[in-house]
Amino acid sequence: MDLAILTHGSFPDRAKTGVGLLRYGDQTVRAVVDRERAGQRVRDSLPDVQDAPIVASMADAPAVDALLIGISPIGGEFDESWREDVRTAIERGCDVYSGLHYFLAEDEEFADLAAEHGVELHDLRKPPDDLSVAAGTAGDVDATVVTTVGTDCSTGKMTASFEIRDAARERGLDAAVVPTGQTGIAITGRGIVVDRVIADYAAGAVERLVEAEGDRDLLVVEGQGAIAHPAYSGVTASILHGSAPDALVMCHEAGREAVHGYESFAIPPLSEYVDIYERMAAPVSDASVVAGMLNTRHLDGDEAAHAVADYADDLGAPATDPVRHGVPDEVLDAVV
Amino acid sequence: MDLAILTHGSFPDRAKTGVGLLRYGDQTVRAVVDRERAGQRVRDSLPDVQDAPIVASMADAPAVDALLIGISPIGGEFDESWREDVRTAIERGCDVYSGLHYFLAEDEEFADLAAEHGVELHDLRKPPDDLSVAAGTAGDVDATVVTTVGTDCSTGKMTASFEIRDAARERGLDAAVVPTGQTGIAITGRGIVVDRVIADYAAGAVERLVEAEGDRDLLVVEGQGAIAHPAYSGVTASILHGSAPDALVMCHEAGREAVHGYESFAIPPLSEYVDIYERMAAPVSDASVVAGMLNTRHLDGDEAAHAVADYADDLGAPATDPVRHGVPDEVLDAVV
Repeated sequence: MDLAILTHGSFPDRAKTGVGLLRYGDQTVRAVVDRERAGQRVRDSLPDVQDAPIVASMADAPAVDALLIGISPIGGEFDESWREDVRTAIERGCDVYSGLHYFLAEDEEFADLAAEHGVELHDLRKPPDDLSVAAGTAGDVDATVVTTVGTDCSTGKMTASFEIRDAARERGLDAAVVPTGQTGIAITGRGIVVDRVIADYAAGAVERLVEAEGDRDLLVVEGQGAIAHPAYSGVTASILHGSAPDALVMCHEAGREAVHGYESFAIPPLSEYVDIYERMAAPVSDASVVAGMLNTRHLDGDEAAHAVADYADDLGAPATDPVRHGVPDEVLDAVV
Repeated sequence: MDLAILTHGSFPDRAKTGVGLLRYGDQTVRAVVDRERAGQRVRDSLPDVQDAPIVASMADAPAVDALLIGISPIGGEFDESWREDVRTAIERGCDVYSGLHYFLAEDEEFADLAAEHGVELHDLRKPPDDLSVAAGTAGDVDATVVTTVGTDCSTGKMTASFEIRDAARERGLDAAVVPTGQTGIAITGRGIVVDRVIADYAAGAVERLVEAEGDRDLLVVEGQGAIAHPAYSGVTASILHGSAPDALVMCHEAGREAVHGYESFAIPPLSEYVDIYERMAAPVSDASVVAGMLNTRHLDGDEAAHAVADYADDLGAPATDPVRHGVPDEVLDAVV
């Protein structure tokens, strides 16, 4: 599929969805639509992802199959300054993908226009309306299932999931990510935003996603939140049990000692945190933490190497910073 | 408030909501509406709850302020054979309370009739529409907060919660249950059905309930599911962390060894299960399991006494079957 990605004013640092797709998507990106960088190219900012021209508006973009809203502002609102671009995309026969809280399909103008032009509006945060409680059957799939877990939100679980997938594919395995958040869903075109699902159905949503691709060699389930997080532990527990994993990969950001946004809550020591995950998992699956992923973005090169080595020691398992150092053989061996 | 309770064909054994209210509600029940027991009285079946006549239809009931749908059929559908009774109640100026999945307020006939007669339709399973993520602040309330947890669904967490409340009240404490399920909500007229809330907001819903009554002496938070349940652990984790309890009360049904409805999953040994709860709670609050509640309904009297004693030994904490033996001082002492 050929795509344009809208990131007005946010490329690249505040366009997580768009950049994730440029890095990990199987789609071909024909243009980034960002009025503040028009005339530049993607590789001027990001040398290691697929390249594309940056244009000022959808009217300037080459022919594509779909437009993706590649930014997620706080609150998930639709910015009215994007309306003309979305309108143009629909009129040009493009489907539109959005991870906003604001549902495009419920916008009267867009809905009418989409019907008129025979295109689809995909609101990625909207869960399917036929979800149900988990049956406890995800453990029966043929695939090796690995679930990424973390010490907090935003520790790199999604990135770790895609890096493991790509390393496994290089080894010739049929590997896929099971996305549970909007960025992963935008990248793969599959998945369910689990934190948006009714609590009773959250594990069932994950189970359904795992079973839908259960005949692959490797499924990497994207975790969310953290099992000891004061607000999001329920989502994490649902993913942990709903995916019935064979193994866990522990994701952490170097130097983070308190829960982000909840600074009165200390992040437990790593060995204790691993123990909580493994004891929680045990009644449903015998998964243990087999590898670690450390986000070292705030460290320099030497510090990062030391931090990863220390992290591996603390875990008693191989570790890496997948963005900085990729996924080395010893980590992938532990995972698959 | 004076109530009638509709239980057609289900009183008493399949009318959990109605019987819960008869046992624990502060409301005065003027009639049970059950066409199969019309002419009997509540005490003919249940000697230890408030008494009321059983009538065949709402038309036969004495004057009341409200009608409660006191049954929850599987699937939560509305049975059309109840329509005439609900219609009669509204026409007589009664509010109607319902814990069904089917929302009465979205039934066109009932909505129109309620508007015409100036009465309110309360759908207890419908969450408030202004929920948000937890702030991690429930631990700051003045009240002692005790959360009931369990080894499975349907182990008696709701009953244990109300029995602890009543024992604490007898001791002169200002105690309340924080209800998280439809029956507890019907009994108290407060609460949120947490399993119906969007996963991201589940802990926040519990936090809000705790903070709303944080100036009492004792709050007993009604738990749901079980922390190692393959389908419902997310709801349990959200209640555990959202309530930030000072102590936990462990609820179990004597003899149950596998997860109900998920028989391939063994219930972990009790000491291991306690450990999972305490390790999960620890990063948010330092709650430990201080007492146990054992449901011995399938045992005879001697067996029950032995089972409770064994359960207390296994827990290393005082225990009781609150339905059979009440809440003795040593249990209440441990809780408050």
